[in-house]
Amino acid sequence: MFKSAESVERLITQLSRLPGIGRKSAGRLAFYLLKIPKEEALELAQAIQDIKEKVGFCAICNNISESDPCHICSDSERRNDVICVVEEAVDLAALDKAEGFGGRYHVLGGRISPLDGIGPDDLKIKELLARIDDKVKEVIIATNPNVEGEATALYLAKLLKPLGVKVTRIARGLPVGSDLEYADGVTLSRALEGRQEI
Amino acid sequence: MFKSAESVERLITQLSRLPGIGRKSAGRLAFYLLKIPKEEALELAQAIQDIKEKVGFCAICNNISESDPCHICSDSERRNDVICVVEEAVDLAALDKAEGFGGRYHVLGGRISPLDGIGPDDLKIKELLARIDDKVKEVIIATNPNVEGEATALYLAKLLKPLGVKVTRIARGLPVGSDLEYADGVTLSRALEGRQEI
Repeated sequence: MFKSAESVERLITQLSRLPGIGRKSAGRLAFYLLKIPKEEALELAQAIQDIKEKVGFCAICNNISESDPCHICSDSERRNDVICVVEEAVDLAALDKAEGFGGRYHVLGGRISPLDGIGPDDLKIKELLARIDDKVKEVIIATNPNVEGEATALYLAKLLKPLGVKVTRIARGLPVGSDLEYADGVTLSRALEGRQEI
Repeated sequence: MFKSAESVERLITQLSRLPGIGRKSAGRLAFYLLKIPKEEALELAQAIQDIKEKVGFCAICNNISESDPCHICSDSERRNDVICVVEEAVDLAALDKAEGFGGRYHVLGGRISPLDGIGPDDLKIKELLARIDDKVKEVIIATNPNVEGEATALYLAKLLKPLGVKVTRIARGLPVGSDLEYADGVTLSRALEGRQEI
């Protein structure tokens, strides 16, 4: 594209490898980065370097963290009797922003998905089972409410129940603020199944 | 978002400044960069640094370039009697990929747009006028076919004509492969106006 600037061409190639960014968007981003002040562009480059150098994984819960253990595992204020299991660190961040949970987390690092070649051994399941002791009374499985997330939840429940711990699944139902009219059939079935007395 | 990893938070902020990338996409990109091998992420960081360090502007035509003059201005095979004026370096790259033009270019660095506070003095117009000598017979104005591009074209024509040079505008009409049925009225009017004998 840019015959006079091989480095621009290289940046476009790099950017177009990012998820959701095609060659056209990559070109636009590269051109934007060319136009902004040097310091701003270098800040972005530095931020990318930083995450690769500073960020690791918590040895206890597998959350992404600059410290080990992470701020949740090292927080003495949190309850030790309940662990919430999520697929990815982004899910943990989303749940922890919502109110109502003051326990611990465990990040699996994905979900069981034979089609993508991801089996139980590729996830931090052994590490989860090792965390179950007398203090832990409940494990909430908060994998995504889709086929693979449900399969992962069932698989985990089968392993956890024999350890004498209560295993629960986050509720599936209608999103708050949504419209019943536009909900899909499966969600409506789940919402009916999970009905609660008021 | 990521309390345990301030550097991730910083990267998300940086990414969400890019055009067309909101906070959600920025989060997804940051998470992707966390997951890929370190070398790949650092390659991207390096590519960003490189464009800010290696890429400059051609002193003759204002094209982005690693060399000065750029590969087009220093190409002795090209015609010297025609200059094609474009808004941005990306436009030059697009035109030069298409066949049919073997002359020189001039990159304005934008278009006249009073709403955005961009006046003639913010563009490389003086530099364009300085390039017009006896050798230059024609200036093709290839600014974008929208309100600001047209206004810029008219403004340039007014300055260029007194210098005794032929000033032309790229044709506006129906894009090749498009459907007459779906074309807008203005494009159709321009296509009729610009009709040519076959």
